[in-house]
Amino acid sequence: MNGIEWMVEAHGCAPESLRDLNTLRRLFNEITEDLKLRRVGETQWHQFPQTGGITGLCLLAESHLAVHTFPEFQSLCLNLFCCVRRREWDFALHLANLVGASSTTVRSVARPYVPAAETSESEPQSADTSLPLGSATR
Amino acid sequence: MNGIEWMVEAHGCAPESLRDLNTLRRLFNEITEDLKLRRVGETQWHQFPQTGGITGLCLLAESHLAVHTFPEFQSLCLNLFCCVRRREWDFALHLANLVGASSTTVRSVARPYVPAAETSESEPQSADTSLPLGSATR
Repeated sequence: MNGIEWMVEAHGCAPESLRDLNTLRRLFNEITEDLKLRRVGETQWHQFPQTGGITGLCLLAESHLAVHTFPEFQSLCLNLFCCVRRREWDFALHLANLVGASSTTVRSVARPYVPAAETSESEPQSADTSLPLGSATR
Repeated sequence: MNGIEWMVEAHGCAPESLRDLNTLRRLFNEITEDLKLRRVGETQWHQFPQTGGITGLCLLAESHLAVHTFPEFQSLCLNLFCCVRRREWDFALHLANLVGASSTTVRSVARPYVPAAETSESEPQSADTSLPLGSATR
């Protein structure tokens, strides 16, 4: 049992979409609804006045979701950290549809918050990724 | 010119420190002060009632800072995403002092938000890491 973080970069996006708060809210909604992630409190948004770039931070029961847009470079960076298991999400498809991304790179990185000695014992055997595994208290 | 993200895992921490909001506030203060990072708005904190684990999310002019603590595993995970250049910070030393971490792993990952064609032209030559480089509008 351990965490996973997806680090996503999208390029070739439409700058006007990257400056549009509603588009980014929709992106967060699609991710949290599709992956059954539970928000804790209000998502924090900030738009930088000079470029119109937006940062969004969303605190989740399952960890966090963050986005930074760079309209001046037609790009965005996104992080989704899940301390419980979740299926892969098609970031490239959704980002092509929502912000017109022409290329998207997705890296997934293990976040080992459980000591190695405990991981092997508690590693779930089930292939069911629809339910939170592990830290059920979150 | 591109972003960098530090992904940090600390193990063997004192559980009571991982449940203490003031300790984590101090951690964020040390990072933001030492690296001259500018906060945008209030840091968002949440403590999970069952384990006492804490999540903190801090929106920065230079991107974001996030922490998740797991007292039940004596561990924490931290992310510092900087879209402008910053020096290395001694996470291991500070986490040993603040939360009693016995081992800390730090990974730094490039976050390429600038298209490759533009990166080579705008890559700063200066070794001065005390000032934000690149996206000066943030």
